[in-house]
Amino acid sequence: MNFLEERIVKDGIVKEGNILKVDSFLNHQMDVTLFQQMGEEFKRRFADKEINKILTIEASGIGIACIVASCFHVPVVFAKKSKSVNIDGAVYVAEVESFTHKCKNQVIVSKKFLHPEDKVLIIDDFLANGCALQGLISIVAQAGATVEGIGIAVEKGFQQGGRIIRNLGYPLESLAIVDSMDASTGTIVFREQN
Amino acid sequence: MNFLEERIVKDGIVKEGNILKVDSFLNHQMDVTLFQQMGEEFKRRFADKEINKILTIEASGIGIACIVASCFHVPVVFAKKSKSVNIDGAVYVAEVESFTHKCKNQVIVSKKFLHPEDKVLIIDDFLANGCALQGLISIVAQAGATVEGIGIAVEKGFQQGGRIIRNLGYPLESLAIVDSMDASTGTIVFREQN
Repeated sequence: MNFLEERIVKDGIVKEGNILKVDSFLNHQMDVTLFQQMGEEFKRRFADKEINKILTIEASGIGIACIVASCFHVPVVFAKKSKSVNIDGAVYVAEVESFTHKCKNQVIVSKKFLHPEDKVLIIDDFLANGCALQGLISIVAQAGATVEGIGIAVEKGFQQGGRIIRNLGYPLESLAIVDSMDASTGTIVFREQN
Repeated sequence: MNFLEERIVKDGIVKEGNILKVDSFLNHQMDVTLFQQMGEEFKRRFADKEINKILTIEASGIGIACIVASCFHVPVVFAKKSKSVNIDGAVYVAEVESFTHKCKNQVIVSKKFLHPEDKVLIIDDFLANGCALQGLISIVAQAGATVEGIGIAVEKGFQQGGRIIRNLGYPLESLAIVDSMDASTGTIVFREQN
């Protein structure tokens, strides 16, 4: 087990309905020392990539993205959830379905902050059905920029998001991939990774 | 001028209606090297305080809070904006009025992550009328914890938020206090600080 898998076993809580609560260190309370380790690991996994910008989505992706960005020495841009009906022409827009909140959100990024020459590392805390990630990839594509890599903290390997993104050929690295979990015993099975 | 004031003069944009756009480095695109400098400056200004936790509010506070937290070697907790009508008993709740979005939001923090012994540094990107900050202070008070300090990136000194908080006796440090600005000339006047 790597450092993140160990932490999930130690402090994560498995709940009925395939819910994994990691809010004590990842997405409500945030352990920035752990995020630092994650940044160094992403740096290792994407060592052959020239990355000049990190893209994430509010809210819980922002913390990880900023610490990872300090390892890569690049700025972060975060996609904003917007309820605005009047989106002016100065933004890239993607529609993102939220599984947790059972609603559709538009997410936007100002055109000022993504350009064709940008080599983007997308960072997020969770990957499940992949809707948020698909929205971020769409925004990078709208800008004519390149997705150099995708770094995820926790992937729910039993949902389809990761498989689709890998099938599409994107270099996706998830630090912990949960293949199955059992709320009655609290057991979590991680996918073997090199 | 300090490093943040210089950056605001260089890259901030003054708009009609006392709007200061700093979205190219602070709250949409985020310059984490600048955040690092801010963290070191807060560390200097709160050198006499024992801080064991940083509290902020989603979304744009999270990035600064995480980088500042890595300087203080403490975890971050962020208050979540919640539209849930059914808030269960396991959270602290405060009502926050948003000037930008002209609506009221409940913000919540799980009771698991704030305790009476916590010595909290509140971090946020902007302070104007102070509603978000009052909500965060209320949440710390509900937990029986102590506000050891409040660190803000940009304060609109011509609005009442900062004055009220200082009148209440809280140690509030804003790295840049804008006393006035003029959209027609783009001029920004900062308050003198030691």
